[in-house]
Amino acid sequence: MQELKNRIVREGKVLPGNIIKVDGFLNHRVDTDLMDHIAEEFGRHFNMDEVTVILTAEASGIALSAVVARHFHKPMIFAKKAKSDNIEGGLYRSDIYSYTYKKKVTLLVSKEWLSADDNVLIIDDFTANGEAVRGLCEIVEKAGAVLLGVGCAVEKGFQGGGDRLRAAGVNLKSLAIIESAEPGNIVFREE
Amino acid sequence: MQELKNRIVREGKVLPGNIIKVDGFLNHRVDTDLMDHIAEEFGRHFNMDEVTVILTAEASGIALSAVVARHFHKPMIFAKKAKSDNIEGGLYRSDIYSYTYKKKVTLLVSKEWLSADDNVLIIDDFTANGEAVRGLCEIVEKAGAVLLGVGCAVEKGFQGGGDRLRAAGVNLKSLAIIESAEPGNIVFREE
Repeated sequence: MQELKNRIVREGKVLPGNIIKVDGFLNHRVDTDLMDHIAEEFGRHFNMDEVTVILTAEASGIALSAVVARHFHKPMIFAKKAKSDNIEGGLYRSDIYSYTYKKKVTLLVSKEWLSADDNVLIIDDFTANGEAVRGLCEIVEKAGAVLLGVGCAVEKGFQGGGDRLRAAGVNLKSLAIIESAEPGNIVFREE
Repeated sequence: MQELKNRIVREGKVLPGNIIKVDGFLNHRVDTDLMDHIAEEFGRHFNMDEVTVILTAEASGIALSAVVARHFHKPMIFAKKAKSDNIEGGLYRSDIYSYTYKKKVTLLVSKEWLSADDNVLIIDDFTANGEAVRGLCEIVEKAGAVLLGVGCAVEKGFQGGGDRLRAAGVNLKSLAIIESAEPGNIVFREE
């Protein structure tokens, strides 16, 4: 998606440790008009008529997912991140490794709101190691729901998480896949 | 806002400890069409032409804020919650007490994205003790920005947080103020 790539090139910051900061328009300050354009773009890749619910993980996936869900008049669910091992019942759970916090995190979705009748589109703002998406896929599976696909805005291609998901058969579409990033030189994967 | 009150009465669950669960449409599974109607309602109470940015706190405020911001073509910022005292520079911060997690939490907003030129509307999904909103107000003040108002979807009036903010001069508008809640009997404040 050219508009998104232009924003990454113009406003993204490359920091040591292969960190790409896009917090001016994606995951701290959020450009909601851009999020709506991203929604339109996802509408070209996924059959939104089939989708019954959009699923994401807190916190930074919520803004994009809410705008996508509103665009197509769908409900959305955000998986909560548990801070402890003391978790109540009635929940689908998946343990993932958070590279941001360098520890295990548990994603939780209430069984009340996701069922075998659902056709799920997972949406996330940013995929690097793919752990959050992997956890969300596992929750969809535990619910017995159908996973229609995964839409990510930005994927750090060189970290391999997206390609591992594709190799596992996930219909993942990322709108900007970054293959390498150095200050002043961000290279995207050819489509 | 009658539509919101109807949903609370029909789908809200009152649990022991004065807990009112509205996680089927507001803060776990999110009804994004209802969020858009809430946005319209906020548009009747606040002069959206003056607003330069919408501010909320992660995580549950993000979905509503994103839909409100998109509705009025505004950017939004979500304050991050820090999990440790090890916080980098370049940030506005406010320490609040989280009644959910029963501990101190620090709200953080990058100085890069909020400035004295901003006219801020704070949006939150749920106000009980008002700590999150109080912290967000403090961040607006530290930025030297103008606080135009605070819009909350649901306020637990009997916990007093909203009224404390009003007494402090904050232009707070909540669309459904719950005065008392027992199973089968939720009473709203008269407007």
